[in-house]
Amino acid sequence: MAEPLFRRLALLGIGLIGSSVARIAMERRDIAAEVVANARSQATLDRVLHLGIADRVELDPAKAVAGADCVMLCAPVGAYAALAEAISPHLAPGAIITDVGSTKVSVIRDVGPLVPAGVHFVPGHPLAGTEYSGPDAGFTTLFQNRWCLLTPPPGTDAEAVAKVRALWERCGAMVDQMDPAHHDRVLAIVSHLPHLLAFTICGTADDLEGESRKEVLQFAATGFRDFTRIAASDPVMWRDIFLNNREALLEMLARFTEDAQAMARAVRWGDAAYIEDKIHRGRRIRKSLIELKQA
Amino acid sequence: MAEPLFRRLALLGIGLIGSSVARIAMERRDIAAEVVANARSQATLDRVLHLGIADRVELDPAKAVAGADCVMLCAPVGAYAALAEAISPHLAPGAIITDVGSTKVSVIRDVGPLVPAGVHFVPGHPLAGTEYSGPDAGFTTLFQNRWCLLTPPPGTDAEAVAKVRALWERCGAMVDQMDPAHHDRVLAIVSHLPHLLAFTICGTADDLEGESRKEVLQFAATGFRDFTRIAASDPVMWRDIFLNNREALLEMLARFTEDAQAMARAVRWGDAAYIEDKIHRGRRIRKSLIELKQA
Repeated sequence: MAEPLFRRLALLGIGLIGSSVARIAMERRDIAAEVVANARSQATLDRVLHLGIADRVELDPAKAVAGADCVMLCAPVGAYAALAEAISPHLAPGAIITDVGSTKVSVIRDVGPLVPAGVHFVPGHPLAGTEYSGPDAGFTTLFQNRWCLLTPPPGTDAEAVAKVRALWERCGAMVDQMDPAHHDRVLAIVSHLPHLLAFTICGTADDLEGESRKEVLQFAATGFRDFTRIAASDPVMWRDIFLNNREALLEMLARFTEDAQAMARAVRWGDAAYIEDKIHRGRRIRKSLIELKQA
Repeated sequence: MAEPLFRRLALLGIGLIGSSVARIAMERRDIAAEVVANARSQATLDRVLHLGIADRVELDPAKAVAGADCVMLCAPVGAYAALAEAISPHLAPGAIITDVGSTKVSVIRDVGPLVPAGVHFVPGHPLAGTEYSGPDAGFTTLFQNRWCLLTPPPGTDAEAVAKVRALWERCGAMVDQMDPAHHDRVLAIVSHLPHLLAFTICGTADDLEGESRKEVLQFAATGFRDFTRIAASDPVMWRDIFLNNREALLEMLARFTEDAQAMARAVRWGDAAYIEDKIHRGRRIRKSLIELKQA
């Protein structure tokens, strides 16, 4: 077995992502010699102990990070500022603080100023997930062959970046580096906007008058059913993502809305060629994804 | 084995749906004593013969329906008017003409006036599908535990309706009857609008500037990947559905757009409670679907 990358890994938040990292670290034992889990409620921590996916649990984040050489924020991004404030005075010199949030500009804005001198801050984002949440939802193959994007601010210690990279590689992920603002723009279109659309169409259906509403549920065909799967994701996590990637998300939604209105116009005026062309483009993109093994 | 429902079943169009019905009819042999397949190209019919999923193939729809006591239109709905015109003089007295199209008002408008006296017209729509198309895409379990909606115009012969119902039940489907306009409204929200949104977001992504566009493909996370799956469906079929359910689709898109704009406003102004509430509603709908075993 390879030498563990860290002596003590503190996971602040133990939902789908955090508990998957915990399960992998506990199973491989080459990521951290000790895994400490922190959550907002004792009930969650009791569940963690019952599942046996951490060596130790701590309800107080300050205690969870004490002596840890790697601290990973795995809570909804809206909770990062308060968490960073709580742990900042207790971070060990030379420790690495990283995260798994889906927005990176906001994380650097909220956490960056609270990182003490001598502590290395390496923001990250594993592009993996399911519609399930909580400590029971994690599993050891979640990151297998999925990308993890690191967005270290300029001047970040190269060795710290290398260690976070190694952590994700041991989790099975492929790792790449990206500018934080660029990350947020790409994620706005590949993840945040699709979720916003899925949540919205569920609401639109839910607003239908009595009989139709019942039938929407009864006759949910392929399209709607797939949308509801996406829409089943964690509300607080997604609320925080939308609020913390506001500019990029609103820009992508504006572009999308223009495109949807152009499609509506083509439907209204019977522009068959326009509609067919748009559908062909969708198929081409799907084909490209399959070639890139992302589908 | 039960007595076959029909002496001769003519399938006009042999894509995903038509070839699935063909496979079931050939395997069970209690739906029709003879299965005749028609398609626009000889290459497709050669493929049908090679696959062994019909007793006989006919390139001329008039010849395909001659002597058939059940004719099923399985082509894109935009092709129905021309098909009905071509077969109308050749339909056997007492025959049943049915279809599988995703829009029902347009089918009654296009086909209804061309149905000769003494021939029974029972429009239908199996709510089943995948993103694949063509005679190779069909399979015998496609309709298993899925709904098939029949929308017979008032005064349709009850025995003819019962026979079409029995056909779909032997295909494994659950059958219900519905008013055609109501069908089109329900399908607009559960199927047509989700497909329009999926095609559109693929186009929006495809329009991004070089580098971002490449990364959209490389980092397609859960949300976008699921949308591209929907968007991989047959272009001509979907073009025809959009154009033939125009009013209901545009109304649902207008409602959806209002809701998306309300969500955009909440994101812009940081209305966390509004966003969270909308996401909670999505989850509730998902839960209802799971309880109804539609997910």
